Amino acid sequence: MADQYAHSGDNKRPTEIPALRWEEPPEGPVLVVLDQTRLPAEEVELVCTDAPALVEAIRSLAVRGAPLLGLAGAYGVALAAVRGFDVDDAAAALESARPTAVNLAVGVRRAHSAHRAVLARGGDTREAAGAALAAARQLHREDAEASARMAEHGLALLDELLPGGGHRVLTHCNTGSLVSGGEGTAFAVALAAHRVGRLRRLWVDETRPLLQGARLTAYEAARSGMAYTLLTDNAAGSLFAAGEVDAVLVGADRIAADGSVANKVGSYPLAVLARYHHVPFIVVAPVTTVDPATPDGASIEVEQRPGHEVTEVTAPQVPVAGTEAGGGIPVAPLGTQAYNPAFDVTPPELVTAIVTEEGVVSPVTTEALADLCARSRQVTIS
Amino acid sequence: MADQYAHSGDNKRPTEIPALRWEEPPEGPVLVVLDQTRLPAEEVELVCTDAPALVEAIRSLAVRGAPLLGLAGAYGVALAAVRGFDVDDAAAALESARPTAVNLAVGVRRAHSAHRAVLARGGDTREAAGAALAAARQLHREDAEASARMAEHGLALLDELLPGGGHRVLTHCNTGSLVSGGEGTAFAVALAAHRVGRLRRLWVDETRPLLQGARLTAYEAARSGMAYTLLTDNAAGSLFAAGEVDAVLVGADRIAADGSVANKVGSYPLAVLARYHHVPFIVVAPVTTVDPATPDGASIEVEQRPGHEVTEVTAPQVPVAGTEAGGGIPVAPLGTQAYNPAFDVTPPELVTAIVTEEGVVSPVTTEALADLCARSRQVTIS
Repeated sequence: MADQYAHSGDNKRPTEIPALRWEEPPEGPVLVVLDQTRLPAEEVELVCTDAPALVEAIRSLAVRGAPLLGLAGAYGVALAAVRGFDVDDAAAALESARPTAVNLAVGVRRAHSAHRAVLARGGDTREAAGAALAAARQLHREDAEASARMAEHGLALLDELLPGGGHRVLTHCNTGSLVSGGEGTAFAVALAAHRVGRLRRLWVDETRPLLQGARLTAYEAARSGMAYTLLTDNAAGSLFAAGEVDAVLVGADRIAADGSVANKVGSYPLAVLARYHHVPFIVVAPVTTVDPATPDGASIEVEQRPGHEVTEVTAPQVPVAGTEAGGGIPVAPLGTQAYNPAFDVTPPELVTAIVTEEGVVSPVTTEALADLCARSRQVTIS
Repeated sequence: MADQYAHSGDNKRPTEIPALRWEEPPEGPVLVVLDQTRLPAEEVELVCTDAPALVEAIRSLAVRGAPLLGLAGAYGVALAAVRGFDVDDAAAALESARPTAVNLAVGVRRAHSAHRAVLARGGDTREAAGAALAAARQLHREDAEASARMAEHGLALLDELLPGGGHRVLTHCNTGSLVSGGEGTAFAVALAAHRVGRLRRLWVDETRPLLQGARLTAYEAARSGMAYTLLTDNAAGSLFAAGEVDAVLVGADRIAADGSVANKVGSYPLAVLARYHHVPFIVVAPVTTVDPATPDGASIEVEQRPGHEVTEVTAPQVPVAGTEAGGGIPVAPLGTQAYNPAFDVTPPELVTAIVTEEGVVSPVTTEALADLCARSRQVTIS
């Protein structure tokens, strides 16, 4: 596509390259995203000049992770507005780019509302575009602050649940600075524990099929100097059985009103293992992840992804995830059908606590979550 | 190595190529094994002319699977004997090629005992070699017969547990004709259900890190015309939650006297999920897998395999598994440490039934297993 092009990072270290940034070069504003499908082999940024390019980047998982998708959605609306494209079309396309992550829709709506509010009170399109961009930037700041507060609340919870210190934490998928305007969600908590010397080991699930754990979390852990060990998702059971896991920390893509948590596929089996072994299973996510409009786990739409993500192996520098033709090397017989849900749903009774920037919900109940959301709205309004 | 060379299969279909066969060409007897690390991309056989070559094939997983390892061990001893190598050395090397699979040691000892018995009563080395080979061939026949009987007992058990028919069976790793002188263990049961029209779906775990499910089980399922679907090991939880799994069928590499089952890593998490969802977890294995000398799960030595099997992705035609240098494409940052146990241990309280050629043990108790082994010894002696 002419409106999305790649350029290599300027030899910066990836943790120094933000996952997403707004730039205003002479030829017009752009949204620059780090192509996460190529990490850790290559650091390539994609420059998006319109919403369809960004939609493609979201679908291919170049941009991924619940909080970051919210920022991408908001900036995407601003990009359409600033460049004079149809903002309603852009918002609709962005909002439906991936069905499960509620933050994406929240981010889109926030910039879109700001844009419409200006037009409704008689402002011109330039002023409306400025409002959309301001809303995206505000969300970006809030997200960074939310990361810091989640890390603080999460660390306090870990210390309370595991008073001995020396935490051995198992995590799944990738939830660090690559998914956030700040230091992330679950990973930010582990990082906070590391900084105060109370993280003994971070167990990193590789997270099949796209290996976000091996590719991205191991990367962030290595850069942060954490003691970490990679494992196949299969091997987590042996760690639990050996008493080597003190807590599980994961993020979330959508939390239903009853506390059911949609997160990367493989989270639910960890929750069942954690319960069987009496280990806390802790979800770390900003309040925007809670979707009061989704009553329960059964109401969460789970994205089904292409089978070739399972039937082919792909070297990380070949960005084929989500494309129609696989392009990887077949490992299964040709014609093999694959079941490839992107997420699974963990019921509230298996979730020890939900850690948000507004505080910790434990036990996880509909009432406690509703209270949290109400408190959060008051804070936002005041 | 000069004593192990590869040749391509003669365009036979892999299910027609036996996993292992004894041949006696003019230049001397050889053991020919199908290189399973190259399936399904290539059908290559390795021709072993001495025990060290076979040990290498076993370590690299070219030859794998509990029952087949028993046959390989027995034939390996016969090969050393027939070719005039030191039989005691060969037996010791073969027996310790992989630590967890008890069948390997059982097979080695059977041929070794036959060899020694002839020498002890004053027979010559040629006669002793003949006895070792006869013992290996006898084990091969018994294994094929055991497969058939396990399939029969296993199908009867499925029909009893799931009277409605239309079984949806989840399996892990590879347990079909590639691991056996017959049609295998757990896979043989699914195949028996398929033949009588009572298998609705075979769910095939891909089985990280070496993808035996994707590469080998999907292959055998496709060849047999079964309705099968591949999934990442991670996605099994979603299937259980959706009520899509009626039974789990797995093999075993060693069963302790108390009924603890060592099998491919990832089996234990399935057992925990199965228990949580009230789904039967059924182990199918020949009686030789039961090791009375191993009292319990904690006594089972679990093989730890090289980290590069996790930190690198490897196309199946590149046979690097188990070699010192990885040779695959790194997916994790360089220097990443990996935890890579080959097996895990499922305690007896999570095993609904153990299906053997001598019958079904359920519930799984030390006493019931001891009775089974005693019965089996009587049958063997009579």
